Parts: sequence; structure tokens; C-alpha cells
Amino acid sequence: MSKELVKFVGGIAPESVVDVYGVCKAPQVPIVKCSQSLVEVDLEEVHVVSRAATPLPMQLTDASAPISLEDETTESAPEDSPKRAKVTLKTRLDHRFLDLRTAASSSLIRLSATVTQAFRTHLASLGFLEIHTPKLLAGSSEGGANIFPLDYFEKKACLAQSPQLHKQMAVMGDLDRVYEIGPVFRAEDSNTHRHLCEFTGMDLEMTIKADYKEVIEVVQNLFLVIFQEIEQRNAPELKILRTHFPFITPFSVPSQPLLFSFPQAVQLLTQSGYPQSPLADLSTEAERHLGKLIKANTGSDFYIIHRYPTAVRPFYTLPCPDDPQYSCSFDVFMRGEEVVSGGQRVHNAEMLERRIEEKGVGKEGLRDYLEAFRYGAFPHGGCGIGLERVVMLYLGIGNIRRVSLFPRDPKRISP
Amino acid sequence: MSKELVKFVGGIAPESVVDVYGVCKAPQVPIVKCSQSLVEVDLEEVHVVSRAATPLPMQLTDASAPISLEDETTESAPEDSPKRAKVTLKTRLDHRFLDLRTAASSSLIRLSATVTQAFRTHLASLGFLEIHTPKLLAGSSEGGANIFPLDYFEKKACLAQSPQLHKQMAVMGDLDRVYEIGPVFRAEDSNTHRHLCEFTGMDLEMTIKADYKEVIEVVQNLFLVIFQEIEQRNAPELKILRTHFPFITPFSVPSQPLLFSFPQAVQLLTQSGYPQSPLADLSTEAERHLGKLIKANTGSDFYIIHRYPTAVRPFYTLPCPDDPQYSCSFDVFMRGEEVVSGGQRVHNAEMLERRIEEKGVGKEGLRDYLEAFRYGAFPHGGCGIGLERVVMLYLGIGNIRRVSLFPRDPKRISP
Repeated sequence: MSKELVKFVGGIAPESVVDVYGVCKAPQVPIVKCSQSLVEVDLEEVHVVSRAATPLPMQLTDASAPISLEDETTESAPEDSPKRAKVTLKTRLDHRFLDLRTAASSSLIRLSATVTQAFRTHLASLGFLEIHTPKLLAGSSEGGANIFPLDYFEKKACLAQSPQLHKQMAVMGDLDRVYEIGPVFRAEDSNTHRHLCEFTGMDLEMTIKADYKEVIEVVQNLFLVIFQEIEQRNAPELKILRTHFPFITPFSVPSQPLLFSFPQAVQLLTQSGYPQSPLADLSTEAERHLGKLIKANTGSDFYIIHRYPTAVRPFYTLPCPDDPQYSCSFDVFMRGEEVVSGGQRVHNAEMLERRIEEKGVGKEGLRDYLEAFRYGAFPHGGCGIGLERVVMLYLGIGNIRRVSLFPRDPKRISP
Repeated sequence: MSKELVKFVGGIAPESVVDVYGVCKAPQVPIVKCSQSLVEVDLEEVHVVSRAATPLPMQLTDASAPISLEDETTESAPEDSPKRAKVTLKTRLDHRFLDLRTAASSSLIRLSATVTQAFRTHLASLGFLEIHTPKLLAGSSEGGANIFPLDYFEKKACLAQSPQLHKQMAVMGDLDRVYEIGPVFRAEDSNTHRHLCEFTGMDLEMTIKADYKEVIEVVQNLFLVIFQEIEQRNAPELKILRTHFPFITPFSVPSQPLLFSFPQAVQLLTQSGYPQSPLADLSTEAERHLGKLIKANTGSDFYIIHRYPTAVRPFYTLPCPDDPQYSCSFDVFMRGEEVVSGGQRVHNAEMLERRIEEKGVGKEGLRDYLEAFRYGAFPHGGCGIGLERVVMLYLGIGNIRRVSLFPRDPKRISP
């Protein structure tokens, strides 16, 4: 390489895009700190395709440095605090196109793609059909809380807070087993590490022969396939992520599925000195505590709780035939946080109408939904899985925003 | 089967869901008019799981009868017209859960699932990564026309009319080649056979080494794979659809890709006596006329037109280096209707800013987008494909609403 060329290359601002021409060679000593260690290019020509402005909004070397658990949890530390990460999450997300150029950030997107592919491939092998349900709904979705309203020509509409109603209607349309991966919208003013206002929902819905355990079985096997696929397909990404987030611990999956009934969960909590009312929902804190108990007792980060109290589940949840105080429902947990909510649905139109009234949900927007159960309805159930949560909790990283390509929360709607 | 059981079964309303117990037998004479002709069940017990109300909003025998081309085009005929189809599209869509129980309607959904799967599998084999871009955008999407605005907490937002801006930003994030299948939203008051206000967009975006022909090549091969997969995987569904829509003609794909430049298309039209200004966009009517000309000349229903006038393409389209009146853009056509719009994008931030100003697009919502091209930008291009249009036009059926699971148009936002 000529002296002039060395000087020219030295003057190109970092992150510029270049075309290079040269001869590929085996280096005399292996190259360190590059992804290719056994090949180098002896440059003959270098052309700048796109010159980067200076200074960069953040330095990629800084953004690529390992992040401590403390960094993950001191996001709100003052600008000059020595505890603050070199590149804050806010800076990363404000300039996401640059952040994505770091190996760790792009690895998270690659892991997400593995999860969606495993979800689809496994469900397709079980006879599930891919569907696309509308995100624009008349009225107020599943009851009206946490929705984004909007005007639809002359009518009032809102964004679907899940594909719940339409995937059920698809099953009533004799499609038998369906799945969908798509955006879901929650106008929830929750500023936590695990809430997004728009995230990717992975939904499935299926007819049931006997009871909701059939859905649980599908979901359990689905997750085992997803975990397996991540390990098999993303070994290089996992290595990058474990270096970037050194606090990551391996996700422990039990050899036998762990299934606890809600009363069992209440008992576990109560015995450990944690007060839990038998018919109230689990708080986030109770869930986390329960996760620690189960981890301590079984070594597992993955388990399912079923038979939630009917009172804490949505109107479409089927009460248990043997005790209507409890319902044919379940949640899946990873590291003590919920990633899936599901269960058997009410397929009897009269019971459904009664449940809607009992729950005080506005029936107006549910007229078409209700009609779908009046002319022969299949017993059915399903669940919804939050993609970003699955990736976040499989790894054990501290913020869901890292997993979303362009996250949306109550304070962020850009870039 | 006992006389009592025969009587009981005869009294069950059509479309009720039943559990039956009995002995499987080979029938003495093959059964006609059933999907299973070589096996029958000698009933012992029949239980009604869910009794259908009577009368049904439409009869499934009527809804399953073949549809003539006249039926497809006389939707607006008066209720008592003899020309009117027995079950109108409106009735079908109002009770979509019942309509989906007909073999033809569910076949259309199955074909759609084949298209999305072929899209993903082929692109994954070419190194494309699946992404999920946000549907909630600050400001006014790609310029403000035809958007659904809404309030996002304290801010103004809108629904993405395509993943355009964010898939480009993902490529600037060094993800190299990306694709997405997801809903896109158009607040366009178009009440035609081929417009929906919400449809399923299949988008791809990739870095470009030399020019936009690289994108065209990917798209051409992608479509060949999609057509092949439909024929291979959906032979039973195609048979059902050809019976239900007897006017369907086979879709003719050329052995060699058919690529016309915009000036060539203008020449073809002009020579045939159809007036077409050389720098104006093709009207829907001109497109259809051109489709007939190309079909007559080549026998093909599938072709691509490229180098559209710069003035008729969006601000992010790269003008041709050899003649900036034309652009590095293309559309894909099936049976004379556009199904894909694509091209190379402007990756130079200054040129992009100038183009935005020239087009009179509000720069406010594009600040973050513009920033993504300032710090080293890859030459890139891509396209967006309308899923429902591809299925409609491959078959040659007359209304896009049939292909959407729960269609949304200016007059319909339910069920």
C-alpha cells in the first residue's frame, strides 16, 4: 500500500462507507480484534462511497464496550455521574441506526428473527395456518382500557390491543388452527423495563378436543423448540451478547415441564412468608418472588401457572367446569416474568354474553364477535406471546427496549 | 344406526358442532360429494357440542355455488335483480366466520399463507433478516397524504403507510438485507375492487453494489418461487377455486423475465393509439391497456416496468445518474395491475434533503430519518409487495376483499 493511500485512508472519517479494491492474502501473523483473522486485503484502491459527518453522535467503540448490570439499572443517573454508562440507552435509541451497527445490538435483532422463525416453523408442522387479522377495529377492542382511538373516515375506531377477537373468529370460520405474528398496541402509561406501547405479538388459536391442557402442551413444546433453535442457530450472537452483557446467566429449562396450579402458587408464596390472597391476581412483585422460589426449589427459569381465578382474567376466558371461581387459563413465565397469557375461551354465545355483561365491557363493539358463536362454535383456546419479552428474558438483559428495533414507549415515538 | 339416532341427527340444525362416536368402515359403494369417498362412519353416538341458531344468515350451499364473472361485477345490482349473486360479497363479509367455512373462501386464505411462507423462505435463503418496524410514527409518515392520524400520549402520531422509512434506517444500521411482513395503513377513500385501507405488506430492502437491477433480479426470482410454491403446495385449493370461480384463467409466466423501460411502455401505448405523455404517470386505465398489449404480444401476465419519471415517484427515489428526469425505480405487474413498487433510494443526505424540499414534503417528521444518512450511508434499494393483490391477480378473481381475512375499506371496519 502506497504512502499516499495510507494517508488518504487515515483521513476518512469513521463509519464512512468505502469501496476497496485489492488482493486477498493470508497474513503472516493472524490478525487479532477482527472477525476475519486469517485473511487480509492488500489495498490498491479505496473509494469513499459515503463520507460520515463528524463527530458521530456516539462513538461505536464506546457503544461496543461491555455493559455492567449497574449500567443497566442506573439509566437515570445524572449526566456527570461516574456510575452512568458511557453510552446511555437513550443515546443509543435516539441514534438507533448507529447503535444497530454494534455487534450486540444487531445480535438481539438476529435472535428475534430466530424466535419468529422457530414459532412459525413449529406451528406449521402442527397444521397451524398463518393469518393476518386487522389492526383497525370498530369501537374499542376487547373492552376499552389502554387503547389508541382514531377516526376511520366517518366512524370511530381503535388499534387492536391483540388479535384476540379476530383469531377466535377465524377458528369459528373452520380454519381449525391459526397463528399470527404482528404488531399489538397498548396505550398503557407504563414506564418500566418490560413494557412497550407497540410490540410484536406471536399469537396462536386452536380448536380443543377435551380441554385447555392441549393448548398448554402445544405451547410447552413450542418454547422448547424456540430455545433449542436460539442455541443452535445463534451461537456466534450468544457469544457476542455474553461478552457485551457479562452479567447474563444461562437460561435454565427443566427436563420435565413445570406446571403449577394457581392455588399451588399461592401456597408456595404463603409458605415462604409472602402474603397472597387466593383469589386475587399476582402482582409483578409476587410473580418475581414466586420465580425466585421456583428457581431455588427446581433450578428452573421456565414454568407455567394455570387455573387463574376467573375474576382476574378477561371476559372470553372459560371458567373451570369443576369450580367456576377458577378458569381454564394459564400464564408462561421466564425468570419470574410473564411472557405468555392464554387459556380456553368461552364458545357458548349465551355464556359469553353473560360474561361480557358481568365484566361491564361495552357490548357495542362486540356484536360481530358474539355472532360468530351463535351458529355452531368449536371449543377452542390459544395464547399470545410477547416476542421482545421472550428474547429479553431468555438472555436475562435488563431492558426490553434493546430488543425492539425501534421501540415505542409512553415517552418515545421516534426515530 | 338406530331409527332414534337417525331422527335425532335429522333434527340438528346445519352448522352445529357435534362429537360423533362410531365405527369406521369402507363403504359398499364409494361416497360422492364428500371429501372422503372411501371411508364412512357407522354412528353409535352423536353429541351436540354447539347448536347452531336458525336460520343461518346465509346458506352455505348457496355460498358454495360457483360464481360467474357477472356475479363478480354486479355487486351493486338491486336486491331483487336476477343478475345478483345468490350470496353477495357484502353478506359474505358481514358474516365472514360463516363464509370462511366454504371451501373457496378458506382456500384463498391458504394461498395467502403459501405466498408469505415462500416470500420468507426465499429471502432468508438469500441472507435477508426478518425485522419488525413500528406502525406508530411521529408526525406524518412519508409526507402526509392518506394517513390515519392519532394521539400518542401528549404527542401527534400517525399509522405507518408502509415500513419504508424504518426499513431504510435498518439497512443504514448495517443489517444489510431485511424483510418484513406486516400491516400497512392507507386512509385513501378509494372504493375499487383493488384497494384496501389496511392490507398486508411484504417489504424488502437491501444494500446495492452497483445499481437497482440487483433489486429487480431478487424480485423476479422471488415471484417465480412464489408462483411455483402456489402450484406445488396448493393444488387441491386451486382445483376448488377454479370450480368456484369458473372464469379463472391460468396465470401465464414468461420463461424469460420481461422488463420494459418506461419510455418503451410509452412507445407501446402510443403505437397502439393510446395517448400517453412521456413524463406523466400511467393511469390505472393505461396500465390495464398496457397489460393487454403485452399479453397479446408476449402471452405473458407478468412483467416489470422500470425507469419511471422522477416526478411521479416519492422523494426517496434515486434519479438516474444518466438522466435525472427518470429514476432508478420499477413496478411489477400481474394481469395489467401493479402489485409491487420499488427502486433504489437516495442515500446522499444532502440530495435527500433537497428532494424532500422539492417535493414539498413536511421535513418535521423526517429529522431522524435524514440523520440516518449523514454518518456513512450504504447505497440501497427495495420494494413493497401487496399480498392480497398478488393472490387476487395470480388467480384473476375480481375483488381483493375476498383475499383479506377481515377486509377494511372506506365503508367497512367490521367484523
